[in-house]
Amino acid sequence: MSTIRIDTTTPYEVMIGSGILKDLGEVIRREIPKAESAAVVTDTNVSGYYLQTALDSLNAAGLRAVSFELPAGEQSKNFAVYEEVLSFLAQEKITRSDAVIALGGGVAGDLAGFAAATYLRGIACVQVPTSLLAMVDSSVGGKTAIDLPEGKNLVGAFYQPRAVLCDVKTLDTLPEDVFRDGCAEVIKYGILSSPELFMHLTKNGRGFDRISVIEECVRIKADVVAEDERDNGVRQTLNLGHTFGHAVEAESDYELSHGQAVAVGMAMIVRAGSRFGITGESCRDRVLECLKIFGLPVSVDKQASELLPYVMKDKKRRGSQISLIVPKDIGDCVIMPASLEEAGVWLKAGCGE
Amino acid sequence: MSTIRIDTTTPYEVMIGSGILKDLGEVIRREIPKAESAAVVTDTNVSGYYLQTALDSLNAAGLRAVSFELPAGEQSKNFAVYEEVLSFLAQEKITRSDAVIALGGGVAGDLAGFAAATYLRGIACVQVPTSLLAMVDSSVGGKTAIDLPEGKNLVGAFYQPRAVLCDVKTLDTLPEDVFRDGCAEVIKYGILSSPELFMHLTKNGRGFDRISVIEECVRIKADVVAEDERDNGVRQTLNLGHTFGHAVEAESDYELSHGQAVAVGMAMIVRAGSRFGITGESCRDRVLECLKIFGLPVSVDKQASELLPYVMKDKKRRGSQISLIVPKDIGDCVIMPASLEEAGVWLKAGCGE
Repeated sequence: MSTIRIDTTTPYEVMIGSGILKDLGEVIRREIPKAESAAVVTDTNVSGYYLQTALDSLNAAGLRAVSFELPAGEQSKNFAVYEEVLSFLAQEKITRSDAVIALGGGVAGDLAGFAAATYLRGIACVQVPTSLLAMVDSSVGGKTAIDLPEGKNLVGAFYQPRAVLCDVKTLDTLPEDVFRDGCAEVIKYGILSSPELFMHLTKNGRGFDRISVIEECVRIKADVVAEDERDNGVRQTLNLGHTFGHAVEAESDYELSHGQAVAVGMAMIVRAGSRFGITGESCRDRVLECLKIFGLPVSVDKQASELLPYVMKDKKRRGSQISLIVPKDIGDCVIMPASLEEAGVWLKAGCGE
Repeated sequence: MSTIRIDTTTPYEVMIGSGILKDLGEVIRREIPKAESAAVVTDTNVSGYYLQTALDSLNAAGLRAVSFELPAGEQSKNFAVYEEVLSFLAQEKITRSDAVIALGGGVAGDLAGFAAATYLRGIACVQVPTSLLAMVDSSVGGKTAIDLPEGKNLVGAFYQPRAVLCDVKTLDTLPEDVFRDGCAEVIKYGILSSPELFMHLTKNGRGFDRISVIEECVRIKADVVAEDERDNGVRQTLNLGHTFGHAVEAESDYELSHGQAVAVGMAMIVRAGSRFGITGESCRDRVLECLKIFGLPVSVDKQASELLPYVMKDKKRRGSQISLIVPKDIGDCVIMPASLEEAGVWLKAGCGE
């Protein structure tokens, strides 16, 4: 098992290994020594595979363990389910010294993380991601959220977990398309800051070495998050492919998965970047090639005019500015502040118009 | 106008004066210079008196101002209204650089503060308290919250405002019983750490000097909050009268107001403290006398056995320990950790059993 330290205001460790879910109870004992109870929040897909292992491990460590199952899927990230989780914590008499454990993919992590951040104004949270996307992205860095009818992730908190436990063995039960979704974010890390990672991915496709690749992604994210916990500067680079990707995702009414949308978003930004002379042509071609190797889409059959309204609603917008993340080369990206009009021009170029 | 600096992780100023609501726009310009829009959240009692002045001041400072009115009363601190406020912010296209303004008493402050803390994972918030209780207590220190069916303030965030503007002129329109509620918290500050304040209050009753008394209360709270932002140590002293008070309040199904309940809670703790030799008899008598001068209750017709279940549910409980705040003398209180059993014994003594 390897550990990566995340140097945020309250530092914590990401543990990565195979078969380490059974160590969960010990981790809680060590990281949250005053906890008497642990509330596991999971989803109906994950619970059948891993909930019992988690509960057994907690009980073996002398903790009272209770659990709550969300309906699987993004639609659970709403206010009704959020309130249900909080009522569950209150009814189970979880106190300020106890812990919430988020066991599952991004939805369980985001929702349980936000519940932990706000129950009694914040109690300890441990993330146990079971999807590739959650391991390399959402479980690390403290972003928690639920959705509004007006848009995804519009409500949430920056709230760092006390530990993250990535058991790569849980990826064995992940459906193929969900695994591929996570691959889009893995490729993103390569483009952002690791030519070696990018080459390994291009060479091995979906057969990449899981432990070392997840370690490398978490290490990259750790550096960025430690430097900019609250997403005001360099952390925005993690948004590579997301500004246009979110628009593509929302315009499809979420028919397109997040990973597919991010893949399209990355393809669009290197296409536009190369048109305007920022992205090298070889970089553009290598990005498009890698995405195709992973079976990820590089375009959608949409006009820029259809996507533009969704770009305007981007939640990262500050006043009338949007930050575009543009690769110059593999491993070298820049933050480009754009007016809403400029963003529209880039969107067109990204659509090949 | 006087200003008191609150030295939390992100420091801010509390401005206290008469007729300063009209300076709101300038305050936003100075404290949140990038804001283009300001969303005022107020309640239906306060809006008739002060909303237009607030909006005019914001517009005069060149800000786009929008407003949302909550139904007045504690019952608005629920998930449905919270979600409505967040949807309102999204629909009004409030961005990360904009501001939420909480204009009103504790309910508006707690709810709007929590909405600001969680909308887009946190945008700037300015508190403009219009009740005595909100001025001396809830608007300063960054505690925000909403209620669960299982209990009050069980969900929230520690989230410091960017500024607090106390216009004491707004107290002129406060109903007499709501003003008296605030007096219970004012008396609490005297008992906690200012014999001078306590004497001024005993001497003048409800005719106390508003500006200087509010200043002194905010100064006391500022010191405590700066030392212990997250309520793990000395900040617990602010809970004087609240552990038993919350139980009395909840047992009455909130027929008893918060101020009345805190008054009863303080009376109970000095009664029990004197029984167990911690609180001096003269201190006990002076506390009871002062509460009576303000027309506040010092007992309820309840048995300890009726109140005990509510003490057990106290949200500040950590595992099986409760912290009782016990005055030794006026201006000198101690934190006494108690087991659940000990808390029950104190409760009995407080009820005079």
